[in-house]
Amino acid sequence: MDIKKLKKILEGVSKGKVDVDDAVGKFKDLSYSDLGHTKIDNHREIRTGAPEVIFCMGKTVEQICNIVQHMLTKDTNILATRANREIYEAVTNVAPKAEYNEMARTIVIRKKPKDITETYIAVVTAGTSDMPVAEEAAITAEFLGNKVVRTFDVGVAGIHRLYNNIDLIRGARVIIVIAGMEGALSSVVGGLVDKPIIAVPTSVCYGANFSGLSALLGMLTTCANGISVVNIDNGFGAGYMASLINGL
Amino acid sequence: MDIKKLKKILEGVSKGKVDVDDAVGKFKDLSYSDLGHTKIDNHREIRTGAPEVIFCMGKTVEQICNIVQHMLTKDTNILATRANREIYEAVTNVAPKAEYNEMARTIVIRKKPKDITETYIAVVTAGTSDMPVAEEAAITAEFLGNKVVRTFDVGVAGIHRLYNNIDLIRGARVIIVIAGMEGALSSVVGGLVDKPIIAVPTSVCYGANFSGLSALLGMLTTCANGISVVNIDNGFGAGYMASLINGL
Amino acid sequence: MDIKKLKKILEGVSKGKVDVDDAVGKFKDLSYSDLGHTKIDNHREIRTGAPEVIFCMGKTVEQICNIVQHMLTKDTNILATRANREIYEAVTNVAPKAEYNEMARTIVIRKKPKDITETYIAVVTAGTSDMPVAEEAAITAEFLGNKVVRTFDVGVAGIHRLYNNIDLIRGARVIIVIAGMEGALSSVVGGLVDKPIIAVPTSVCYGANFSGLSALLGMLTTCANGISVVNIDNGFGAGYMASLINGL
Amino acid sequence: MDIKKLKKILEGVSKGKVDVDDAVGKFKDLSYSDLGHTKIDNHREIRTGAPEVIFCMGKTVEQICNIVQHMLTKDTNILATRANREIYEAVTNVAPKAEYNEMARTIVIRKKPKDITETYIAVVTAGTSDMPVAEEAAITAEFLGNKVVRTFDVGVAGIHRLYNNIDLIRGARVIIVIAGMEGALSSVVGGLVDKPIIAVPTSVCYGANFSGLSALLGMLTTCANGISVVNIDNGFGAGYMASLINGL
Amino acid sequence: MDIKKLKKILEGVSKGKVDVDDAVGKFKDLSYSDLGHTKIDNHREIRTGAPEVIFCMGKTVEQICNIVQHMLTKDTNILATRANREIYEAVTNVAPKAEYNEMARTIVIRKKPKDITETYIAVVTAGTSDMPVAEEAAITAEFLGNKVVRTFDVGVAGIHRLYNNIDLIRGARVIIVIAGMEGALSSVVGGLVDKPIIAVPTSVCYGANFSGLSALLGMLTTCANGISVVNIDNGFGAGYMASLINGL
Amino acid sequence: MDIKKLKKILEGVSKGKVDVDDAVGKFKDLSYSDLGHTKIDNHREIRTGAPEVIFCMGKTVEQICNIVQHMLTKDTNILATRANREIYEAVTNVAPKAEYNEMARTIVIRKKPKDITETYIAVVTAGTSDMPVAEEAAITAEFLGNKVVRTFDVGVAGIHRLYNNIDLIRGARVIIVIAGMEGALSSVVGGLVDKPIIAVPTSVCYGANFSGLSALLGMLTTCANGISVVNIDNGFGAGYMASLINGL
Amino acid sequence: MDIKKLKKILEGVSKGKVDVDDAVGKFKDLSYSDLGHTKIDNHREIRTGAPEVIFCMGKTVEQICNIVQHMLTKDTNILATRANREIYEAVTNVAPKAEYNEMARTIVIRKKPKDITETYIAVVTAGTSDMPVAEEAAITAEFLGNKVVRTFDVGVAGIHRLYNNIDLIRGARVIIVIAGMEGALSSVVGGLVDKPIIAVPTSVCYGANFSGLSALLGMLTTCANGISVVNIDNGFGAGYMASLINGL
Amino acid sequence: MDIKKLKKILEGVSKGKVDVDDAVGKFKDLSYSDLGHTKIDNHREIRTGAPEVIFCMGKTVEQICNIVQHMLTKDTNILATRANREIYEAVTNVAPKAEYNEMARTIVIRKKPKDITETYIAVVTAGTSDMPVAEEAAITAEFLGNKVVRTFDVGVAGIHRLYNNIDLIRGARVIIVIAGMEGALSSVVGGLVDKPIIAVPTSVCYGANFSGLSALLGMLTTCANGISVVNIDNGFGAGYMASLINGL
Repeated sequence: MDIKKLKKILEGVSKGKVDVDDAVGKFKDLSYSDLGHTKIDNHREIRTGAPEVIFCMGKTVEQICNIVQHMLTKDTNILATRANREIYEAVTNVAPKAEYNEMARTIVIRKKPKDITETYIAVVTAGTSDMPVAEEAAITAEFLGNKVVRTFDVGVAGIHRLYNNIDLIRGARVIIVIAGMEGALSSVVGGLVDKPIIAVPTSVCYGANFSGLSALLGMLTTCANGISVVNIDNGFGAGYMASLINGL
Repeated sequence: MDIKKLKKILEGVSKGKVDVDDAVGKFKDLSYSDLGHTKIDNHREIRTGAPEVIFCMGKTVEQICNIVQHMLTKDTNILATRANREIYEAVTNVAPKAEYNEMARTIVIRKKPKDITETYIAVVTAGTSDMPVAEEAAITAEFLGNKVVRTFDVGVAGIHRLYNNIDLIRGARVIIVIAGMEGALSSVVGGLVDKPIIAVPTSVCYGANFSGLSALLGMLTTCANGISVVNIDNGFGAGYMASLINGL
Repeated sequence: MDIKKLKKILEGVSKGKVDVDDAVGKFKDLSYSDLGHTKIDNHREIRTGAPEVIFCMGKTVEQICNIVQHMLTKDTNILATRANREIYEAVTNVAPKAEYNEMARTIVIRKKPKDITETYIAVVTAGTSDMPVAEEAAITAEFLGNKVVRTFDVGVAGIHRLYNNIDLIRGARVIIVIAGMEGALSSVVGGLVDKPIIAVPTSVCYGANFSGLSALLGMLTTCANGISVVNIDNGFGAGYMASLINGL
Repeated sequence: MDIKKLKKILEGVSKGKVDVDDAVGKFKDLSYSDLGHTKIDNHREIRTGAPEVIFCMGKTVEQICNIVQHMLTKDTNILATRANREIYEAVTNVAPKAEYNEMARTIVIRKKPKDITETYIAVVTAGTSDMPVAEEAAITAEFLGNKVVRTFDVGVAGIHRLYNNIDLIRGARVIIVIAGMEGALSSVVGGLVDKPIIAVPTSVCYGANFSGLSALLGMLTTCANGISVVNIDNGFGAGYMASLINGL
Repeated sequence: MDIKKLKKILEGVSKGKVDVDDAVGKFKDLSYSDLGHTKIDNHREIRTGAPEVIFCMGKTVEQICNIVQHMLTKDTNILATRANREIYEAVTNVAPKAEYNEMARTIVIRKKPKDITETYIAVVTAGTSDMPVAEEAAITAEFLGNKVVRTFDVGVAGIHRLYNNIDLIRGARVIIVIAGMEGALSSVVGGLVDKPIIAVPTSVCYGANFSGLSALLGMLTTCANGISVVNIDNGFGAGYMASLINGL
Repeated sequence: MDIKKLKKILEGVSKGKVDVDDAVGKFKDLSYSDLGHTKIDNHREIRTGAPEVIFCMGKTVEQICNIVQHMLTKDTNILATRANREIYEAVTNVAPKAEYNEMARTIVIRKKPKDITETYIAVVTAGTSDMPVAEEAAITAEFLGNKVVRTFDVGVAGIHRLYNNIDLIRGARVIIVIAGMEGALSSVVGGLVDKPIIAVPTSVCYGANFSGLSALLGMLTTCANGISVVNIDNGFGAGYMASLINGL
Repeated sequence: MDIKKLKKILEGVSKGKVDVDDAVGKFKDLSYSDLGHTKIDNHREIRTGAPEVIFCMGKTVEQICNIVQHMLTKDTNILATRANREIYEAVTNVAPKAEYNEMARTIVIRKKPKDITETYIAVVTAGTSDMPVAEEAAITAEFLGNKVVRTFDVGVAGIHRLYNNIDLIRGARVIIVIAGMEGALSSVVGGLVDKPIIAVPTSVCYGANFSGLSALLGMLTTCANGISVVNIDNGFGAGYMASLINGL
Repeated sequence: MDIKKLKKILEGVSKGKVDVDDAVGKFKDLSYSDLGHTKIDNHREIRTGAPEVIFCMGKTVEQICNIVQHMLTKDTNILATRANREIYEAVTNVAPKAEYNEMARTIVIRKKPKDITETYIAVVTAGTSDMPVAEEAAITAEFLGNKVVRTFDVGVAGIHRLYNNIDLIRGARVIIVIAGMEGALSSVVGGLVDKPIIAVPTSVCYGANFSGLSALLGMLTTCANGISVVNIDNGFGAGYMASLINGL
C-alpha cells in the first residue's frame, strides 16, 4: 500500500469520518474473494489496469468452474488461457456465452464492451507452427482492448516475405515477434524498426532446440536493440505486455 | 528496404530526375562506413531512432579508437559500453571531451544537446551490488534523451523499502527492475504497478545463481504480468528498450 | 551404532547376562524385516523418530501390498506417498481401513491414535496449482502428529492476499512455502517472519520453468534469510522436516 | 505490515494521541536508513529476529565502510560476510575493534554481549576442504547467540569417523552438514539422527562436480528424511537457519 | 535483393520498358504465395537452388493439405518431412500419387523427373536404430537429384565392419555420418577419408545421452578434421547440405 | 587388426600356403554377417570375449527377429536387452525356447551350456525401485557365466541394513552398486570394501534427480576410491564390465 | 587400411617382390613418428589430403618445439594454431622463418609453395569481435591453398551491410559464417545463397550466451537449409572443412 | 563393522580376555587420528587395501604439512595429489625425501618398498595434452605397486597409431583410456580388446567440450562394452580402480 492512500484513510479516521474497524475492513474486504483453493484478486484491475486472468494449467476443471462462477458475479470480462476442450465444455455449463478458440486454447466471456485502440499491435511469426502461441498473444491483446494485426510465416529463411510486410509491421506501436528454432526473426525485425519488440520463443523444433531453449537464448543475446523477451510459448505474457505499452 | 521508398526512387528514376547509378549509389553510400574491421551503420538512427552504440567487449583498443574517430566526423552523439579505464584513456586522445563513468563502464561523447523527456524511467535495483548494471541502464536512457529516476536497494527481503518508494516507481512511464539472486523483485513490483517493466537479471550472487541463470529463469517465469526480460547484466539493452517505450 | 549402546551390550555379555550369539542376533533381527525385494527398516522410528514411509513410485503394486501387509503386523501407523488410485484399490484388499487422498496421492492407515501438537505448521502456497504438493506436505505433517494450518493462493502477483494472512502465518512455529514459476513467495515471506521456512519448488509452469528448475534455483538463491529448500514437488520431505522442527 | 499494528496506530490516530503525519512518518523513518547506494533495513531485527548482515560480494570497499559507519551509530552488533583482507583493513579504519576470520572471510563487530543458548548446533563437514564454509556457518550461528560444536572431516569414505562422533552430533538441537563432491554425508547422517539437518553443498571438487552442482543435486534428492538444503557454499544461510530453529 | 538485379530493373524503368507499378509488383508477386497461415516461398528455388520443403511438425493436417494443393499448381516436385501416416493419408486426397516412406516419415510427389548426379553421397550409420534419420537424409538427397549409397551399422564397437566398407565410403564426394550414443563414428571416419563429412547426432540411446546431447557434443568436439554437424536427428538438413556440396 | 596376425597371414601367403584372394576374403567373410539393416559382428566373441548382444531399443520387431534368426544359425547363446513383451512374443515364433524376464526386460536363448565361475559378483541396490536395472545387470552377468549374489534395498537411510549384509558383499570379487536419488550408496560401500565397484545411477526419483543426473554426478564425484560408473540405468553395461573383471 | 592396398602388398609378398618383414615394417614405419609424448601422423596428408596441424592448447612449449623440429625434417608446410606469443618466440629458435598472426594466434612455416584455387571461400562475420576466429579460419584455408575473401561486421542488426556485400558472398564456392550472440547471421545468409555454409558460433557476448551456447544452439536449429556447424570458436575446423569442399 | 569382527571381540570379552573399556577403545583408537581440521583414516589400508591419499585441492599448505608430519610417524608410504610446486616445497621441510612430478602434480614419499605386479596396467591417451591426467593415473598405479605401460597420443584421428600399439594394450590386465574432446578413443579400444577399460574424460579442448562434459557424456554412452568411467580429469581415481582390478 502506498503512502498517499494510507494518509487519506488516516485523515478520514482522524476526522471521525471513517471508523477504525471500517478502515481495517476496507483493505481486507475489497481486495480478494477467498474460494478456499483460490483467492481471486479483485483489486488487480485497479492496481495493474487489467483483471485477473485464469491460467488453467494445473487447476482442476471443478476449480476453474468455481472461479468462473464467482467472477461472473462481478462486472468484469473473463479470459481463461491454456484451456482444453474439456474445460471449455464444463465452463459453458456456468457461462453459456463463453467463446472458445481451439488454436489459442483460450476462453473469453464478455460482460461489457471494451473500447478498441486506434494504434495497433503487430503479431509476427516466423512460421506456421508458431500460430498457437501467436493466437494466444493476439486474443489476449484484443481482450484487453487493442487492435491487432497478424503477419504470419515471415521467417528469415525467406526474408523477402518479411520485407514485403515491413510497412505494416513498422506501422504498429509495439511489435510481438514469435519464433521457434533459432529465434532469429526478432533480431532481424529489431534492426529494421524503431518500435519496441516483445519476443516470444516457442518450443517448435526438435533436437538442439531443447524445448525452446535455443530460441530463448537467441532472443536474449540478440545483437539488435529494443527487444525484450517473455517465457517460452508465453503468448499471453507477450499480449499483456504489448497491451500495457500500447495503452501508454 | 520497404516498398514506399523503393517506389519513390523508382519514380525519380522514371521521371529522369534520378540517374540510375545515382540510385544504386544512394543505397550503398548512405548506409554504412567501412573501416575494414567494422562497418559503421550510419543508417541506424534513421531506421531505428538511435545511433549505433559501440560495444567494446571483444574489440581491440585500436579498433575502438578508429570507430570513435570516424563517428566524430558525423553529427552524432557517441556512447560506448563495457569500456574499461584503459579504453577510456585511449579514447581521450581522439576525443578529449569524452566522459567516463567507472561504475557503469560507459564513455559518452556529446556533440549536440538532446531534449529530455518529461515522463521518466524508473531504474530500480534489489541490492547495492546491482548498481553497475543499473548505472549502465540509466546512462543509456539518459544518453537517448530520457529523464531517469533511480531507486536502489529495495529488494524483497525488506519489502517496506519498496513500499515507501512505490509512488515514485508508479509515477514512471516505464520501469526497469534489476536484480540478481532469485530476481523476485520484478514479480513483486509487477503486482503493484500498471506500467510495463523491463527486468534485468544480474550475475550477482554465487552457487546456484550459476552466473545469473537463477535470476534469468525467475524473471522469465514470473507469476506477475507486464514484465519482459533482457539478457543477464544487460543494462544497456534495458535502457534502450525503456527509452523506445518512453518515447512512444 | 553408537558407542553407548555398544558398551551396554558388551557389559551384558561381560557379566554373562547376554549370550554372545544373542548379542549378535540382537542387532541383526531387530533392525529390519527382509521381504526379498524390500528390507523394511523397523529401527527407523527408534532412530529417527518416525516410521519408514512407503514411497510408491517405481514399486510394483504387488510389492507395495507385501510391504503394507508386513507393516500391519507391527504396532505402527502407515503412510504411503505417490500412490495412484490403482495402488489404493489394491491396498484396500489387505487394509480395508486405508484412507486415500486423491489430490495428495497419499494412503494413510491408522492403527493407534497420535497426539496432536499445540503449535502449528503453516502450509502456504503461491497458487491453486500448487495444491497437490501442499496437501502431500500437510497430510504428512498431520500423520506425524502436527497441527497444520493451510493458506493457499497468496502469490506475489497479488501480494495483499499474503499481507491479509500474515498474522496466521507468523503464528506458526515453522512455515512451509510452496511455489512454482519463479518461486518468489518464499523470499517475500522470509523477509516478514522470524520463523524457519521450508521452501518447496513445484514444477507448475511451462517453458523456462524447466520442470521446476526456475523455482528451485530461485529458492536456493533467495535474498532473504531463514529459508532452506527440499526437492522439487517434495511435499512429503517438507512435511517431515517441518514436523521435526515443530517437535523440538 | 500486519493488521494488528495497523489497528493500533489507527486507534492512536483516532483518539488523537497520534498525529497523522507522525503516523505516516512512523513507518517511513523507522524502517530503513537510506545511504543512496544502500537502504539499511533497521526494522529487520524486529521483524525477523536478527539485524541486517552485510554481504560484501559485489559492493565496493567504500560502500561497505559507509554501511559499517552508519550501523555503528545504532545499538547493534555487526556481521559482514564474504569479506577479503582488503575490506577488513578498510573497515578497521572506521571500526578498530573489528575481528577478522581469514578462513571464514567474516568481520564481526560486537557492541553488546549476546546470551548464548544452552542447546547447541552441530557443524559437521565431510572433508577438510569444506572448512571455509563450515567456519562461515559456525561464526554466523555464534554471532546470533548459539553454542556451536564443530566436527570436521567425517566423510563417508571412512564412515567410522562419523560413528565415533555420532553421540556428539545426536546431542545437537539442529545439525548443519557440509559436503562437496557427491554430498552423501547428509543422507548418512539423516538416517542416524532424529534432529533437523541443514545441508550445505560446497564447490570443493573438480570435473563433474560442476561448481557444486553434484553435491547440490545429491542433497536435494536424498533418500533420508529431515534434510533441507541451502545454496552452494552458503555457510551464512545455514548458520542463520540453524539459529532460527535452535532459538524456537 | 542484390545490386545487379536492382540495376537491371532500374534500367528497364529508366528506359520506359518497365512500368513503375510493374516493377514494384514484380518483386512482390513473384516471391511468395500467401495462404494466410503460410507464405510459400516461390522464390526459394531460384535463390537457393531447391524448392521450399514442407516441415510437417507443428502444422495441422489441414494446413499441410492446403500447402500441397497450392504447390501442385506450380511446376515443382514436393517433399514433406516429419509426416506421420495420418498426414500422408490426408495428402493422398489432394495428391493421389504421393509416395510415403514409413521409416523416413517422408512424402514425395514428383511432377517432373530430375537428373541424377554421377558422383554419389555416402550415408553411413553407426547402428540399426539410426535408420529413420538415415533414410530421411537419403530420400532428401535423392529428391534433390543425388545418387546415394547406404552403409548401415558400421559403428566403432566392431570397427572392421567400417574397414570392409571404407572403399565405398571413400568413393563418395561427400559423406553423411549418422550416430547416436557417443557419436564416435564421425571422428573415426574423419581420420580415414579426404572428403567432407556431415555428421548427424541422433537421440538413440538412453540415460546420459540426454536426447542426443552426448552425440551432438561428441561430434562438435571431434579430434578429426573435415567434419561439420547439423541438428540432432536432422536427416533432412544433412541430405540438403550434402546435396549442395555434391552439386558444386 | 594387429601386427602378429597380419604377419602370420603374410607368411602363409609368402609360403604359398594361403592364396591371395583367400587372404583377402578371410578378413572380410569371417568378420560379420550383413542383413542390410544390421551387420552382425561375428568376430566380437573372439575379439572381446563375448558375443554381440541385441539392444532392442530403436529397432523394429521385424529387424530383431531377423537378427535372432541369423544368430540361431551360429553356435552361440543369445541375449537381447530392453525387450518389451511384444518383442518377446514375436521372438518366440523364431525361437520357441526364448526365456523372458519381465522385470529385467531381457530375452535369453541358450544353445550351449556355460560354465559358472566360483567367485561371485554382488549386485547391490539402494532401493526396491532399482530392481529392473539390477535384474538386467544380474541376468547379463549370469548369461556371461558368472555366479551372482543379489542384495536389494540397503540404501543409506537405514544403513544398518547394509552393515548386516556387508560380509556377503565383501566376499564378492567385484561389486555392482545400483542407486537412484543421490546415489550415495556407492560411496558408502566404497569406503568399506577392497574390491572394485561398478556404480550404476538410476533415474528413479523425481524433481532434481533430472532423469538420473543427480545420481550420475554423485557417483562420479564420489569421495571414496575404487569406483567407476556406467551410463544411467545401464544394468547391461555394469553386468558386462563386472563379468570381464570377474573373469580375469 | 583399405582392401586394395592390402591386396597390392599381399601380391608383392606373394610374388616374392616384397619381403614379409618389409611389408610389416612398411605400415609401421611410414605411418607416424613417435616422439614419446606425441605420435606425429605422417600418413595424414596421404589419407586425408592435409598434413597434421599442431594444436598448441594443452601442450608445453617444449613439446611444441619438439614437434616442429621433427616436422621440419619432412617436406611439408607447418601450421600451428592456438599459439600465444611465448610459443611463437620459442618456435623461432628452431624455425626462424615462422610467421605469426597475433589476432589469429597462428604460426605458419612454409617449406614449399602451394597452388592457390581460383574459386574462393568467403569468410563472413557478424561483428568486429568475431575477427580472431575469422582470421584463424581464413589463415587455415589459405595455408591449405585456398583463395579467401573476407567480409566482416555484416550482422543482422544492420542487415543492409549484408545486402551490399551479398554478390561477393554469393560468388564464393563455400561460405564460412562466424557469429556470436544469437548467431542469426548464418540463417539469414542461408536464405539468400545456394552455396554450402559452414557456421562457426563464437563465445563473444555475455550473460545468456553461456560461452557460445546461444550461438551454437541457434546455428544448429536454423530454419534455413544448407548450413552445418563446427565447434564454438573453431575457426580452424571451419577453414579446414571449407577447404575440403572448395577442393572438390 | 562386520559381524565376524564383532563376534570375535564379543568372544574375547565373554571369555574375560578382553576388557570392556579396551573393547570400546579398540574401535575408537585404532581407527583414525584427529588433527582437528582432519581425521586421518588409519584403518583405510586394512579396510580397503590402500592407505589414505592426501588430496591437496582446497587444503591450506599448513594443513597438508600437518597431515604429512603425522603420517610420517606411521609405517606407510605417502601419496599427495593435485599438489603445486609451493606445496611441494613446504612438504620438503618436513619430508626431505619427497619426490615431485611436475606434470602429474604428485608428491610421493616412500618409507617401505612395495612389490611390483607382473601383470601390467596400460595407460593410453588420445593426445599429448592428456598427459597430466595420464601421469597422475600412472604414478598412482605405480605407487600402489603396479607395473604400468604408457602409450600416448593414439587418438582416433590417426587410428593406425592405435593399431600399431594394440598388442601392447591387449597384453595389459586392465586398461586406462584417457581422452578429451569427444572421448571416442575408449569406444574404439573397447571394441578391440577383452579387458576391462577405465575411461577418464579430460577437460582438454574448448567450446562445446564444456569443461570435459562432451568427453564424459561420450564415454558414458559408449556403444562398446566393458567400459566404465571416472570423474573428469580424475587420473588418481582411474589409477586406483585399475590397481584394485590388477590386484585381484
